[in-house]
Amino acid sequence: MLDETMTNKIISNIGQKRWEHSQRVKDIAIELGNIYEEDLKKIEIAALLHDCAKFLDREKLLKKVDEFDIILEDVMDHNMELIHGLLGSKIAKYEFSIDDIDILNAIQYHTTGRKAMSPLEKIIFISDYIEPGRSFPGVEPVRKLAYENLDKSIVLAIDQTIKFLINNDRLIHINTIKARNYIKIEMIEKGGSK
Amino acid sequence: MLDETMTNKIISNIGQKRWEHSQRVKDIAIELGNIYEEDLKKIEIAALLHDCAKFLDREKLLKKVDEFDIILEDVMDHNMELIHGLLGSKIAKYEFSIDDIDILNAIQYHTTGRKAMSPLEKIIFISDYIEPGRSFPGVEPVRKLAYENLDKSIVLAIDQTIKFLINNDRLIHINTIKARNYIKIEMIEKGGSK
Repeated sequence: MLDETMTNKIISNIGQKRWEHSQRVKDIAIELGNIYEEDLKKIEIAALLHDCAKFLDREKLLKKVDEFDIILEDVMDHNMELIHGLLGSKIAKYEFSIDDIDILNAIQYHTTGRKAMSPLEKIIFISDYIEPGRSFPGVEPVRKLAYENLDKSIVLAIDQTIKFLINNDRLIHINTIKARNYIKIEMIEKGGSK
Repeated sequence: MLDETMTNKIISNIGQKRWEHSQRVKDIAIELGNIYEEDLKKIEIAALLHDCAKFLDREKLLKKVDEFDIILEDVMDHNMELIHGLLGSKIAKYEFSIDDIDILNAIQYHTTGRKAMSPLEKIIFISDYIEPGRSFPGVEPVRKLAYENLDKSIVLAIDQTIKFLINNDRLIHINTIKARNYIKIEMIEKGGSK
């Protein structure tokens, strides 16, 4: 569990509203952790920290990117939204002393996903997508599916995200496609639906 | 230009109907080559050979894949449609003695696209998408755009392809996303639209 100093530090980075989002992500992630039998302590830490680098202040974000010597690849360089996962994993490690690689990965890849995600990564990814504050078109079927089949819910979430990005003239991160292909190929090879 | 022996060999691989498709691709590609001032001789060879490995006989295709020691990556292994580009570049090289790397790349990447495509690659990619035998929903705006702005027409074609693949529960090749991101980032950096 995070102590008061840590909590206050997160809130000062990201503001009260986003902190409330993180708490809702934590609640959903713990529900899913119970269903899919994953470590609830790890889930709680990853969920509460997943947006720790989503700084309200853009200047501060860029300063941190520089401080941690983060080299932005093409797509990230043109989509500030994608930086906070990678930066968040650095802040979790060096400023919150989190050394569990699975937690750090769950933070790093919570927006894009990636090839061969761990169960913890999947739970944080989908909880961030479906937490009750989310009300965009298409969220409801994903929300329902998350409690029944984690992989299928992630594929549906990614499919909707890709279409949203295309319709809004945005770049698509390669890791999102790799996450989708990996899960779909696993499903094909297990003899399930494509 | 391909001689009669070569032409007959292609037809025996892919059948008369697909050969007629290749000729329509050639006609469009030459129109575009005139507009965008690319080498018409290269365009003609690449267009006529682009589907040379789209064997009517699946057994023969797999035998050729084996013969050329082609190792199929995950996505290709689950989508036979994607094999013929890579295999086609091998057949063009070793059976049709094509040694121009730009022509071989245009054949190899004509279905998926890839990061940093050459003008020749772009012309073959889009001509295959818009040749007059194509009549799927959405082809018309791409057809129009191809004569005005090659890059924009490719992005639109890719956007429609990605949506089609999602709606049909299919895998998406990474190279297609890389092709799209590369062109869009170039457009952003040139200060054009996103």
